[in-house]
Amino acid sequence: MTIKITGHWVSACTQQVLLVLYEKDVEFELKNIDWSTVEHKSEPHLKNQPFGQIPFIDDDGFILFECRAIGRYIATKYADQGPKLLPDPSDLKAVALFEQAASIEQSNFDSYAGAIAHEKYYNPMQGFPTNEAAYQRNLDILNAKLDGYERILSKQKYLAGDELTLADLWHLPYSDVAEIIAPQLLESHPKFNEWYQGLKARPSWVKVKDFIQQSMKA
Amino acid sequence: MTIKITGHWVSACTQQVLLVLYEKDVEFELKNIDWSTVEHKSEPHLKNQPFGQIPFIDDDGFILFECRAIGRYIATKYADQGPKLLPDPSDLKAVALFEQAASIEQSNFDSYAGAIAHEKYYNPMQGFPTNEAAYQRNLDILNAKLDGYERILSKQKYLAGDELTLADLWHLPYSDVAEIIAPQLLESHPKFNEWYQGLKARPSWVKVKDFIQQSMKA
Repeated sequence: MTIKITGHWVSACTQQVLLVLYEKDVEFELKNIDWSTVEHKSEPHLKNQPFGQIPFIDDDGFILFECRAIGRYIATKYADQGPKLLPDPSDLKAVALFEQAASIEQSNFDSYAGAIAHEKYYNPMQGFPTNEAAYQRNLDILNAKLDGYERILSKQKYLAGDELTLADLWHLPYSDVAEIIAPQLLESHPKFNEWYQGLKARPSWVKVKDFIQQSMKA
Repeated sequence: MTIKITGHWVSACTQQVLLVLYEKDVEFELKNIDWSTVEHKSEPHLKNQPFGQIPFIDDDGFILFECRAIGRYIATKYADQGPKLLPDPSDLKAVALFEQAASIEQSNFDSYAGAIAHEKYYNPMQGFPTNEAAYQRNLDILNAKLDGYERILSKQKYLAGDELTLADLWHLPYSDVAEIIAPQLLESHPKFNEWYQGLKARPSWVKVKDFIQQSMKA
């Protein structure tokens, strides 16, 4: 059964979902929302995504939103296909360390990396001005947060231990933008950079980038 | 075995952990960090919490940080004690809907409610000025996000369905502050308010508030 995604190829959260689908080799169909009609704030969209955000999925009638919840759902449903990406649910401590890593990404990375991406990448793309003060404030916070990543990645290969998990992959879309707009962040954090370069080289991310390129031309 | 927490009773994230411990009736010992020496940024603290944040726990030598990961760990370890708080791990869709709710709390509530709490509650408490523009910006975003909560809570009792989960409880510390500094948010969102009043009346939260009161006097 093909998973139907309502989202947009330009959105980092949609890209996060595509990445997991490619890792797990699951068929999907992406319906891009129509920015010109502000479709994501329309009543039909709000019925499926009550916050007016993207993406959401429809898996044979099962509607789910929040990209990290979608990623976990796909990785669990297709646990025996492709890399594991999640610890064994019966391993209490491994699950706890994965949840620690997942929470680090959402609390210590996403909002700051997302903010700098919006100010210096998405805003110029849409013709909106950059709020330089907001950019600098979030850049400074992210820079300090990456010191924490250095401490972790000096001791272990991945964020939850020595195995790749979803918590690592979720960093890719905004790290990719950060590499373009603020390469100094990576240069000054060699362990983070090494880890990111490894993730970036994965065939799944190469496929997401190809998908973005093709969608841009279409 | 008593769980040792390094944190502080004033921190919302520490309160979140205490709340789960009280729900599960698990013994704990809280060691408050010393703000005067900026203990949470010291080398010994950074060994256990690489971002210099609080809290972390030591459960018989197992060190874990990120309050939501700690809450999940306690709820799983003591699954048969007190209310369930997490769906059955073998129920793919129930788990997905819990993860959706958990992600809503972290992405759509915590950062905005946390920001208004810091500007109008924690900053004045510590003698720091309030950034009125930041307060207003985050208040406006939170106000719009609560419209999403209204849509969800008009259809079901709790955020992940009709059963209470950790995703609901995690809202308590900052909702409590929001009720003090911005009661209009609750007045204009009756479904959110009804849900919050129900959570607030739970014996676990009453115990957290008592613990805060006692710690304040100590």
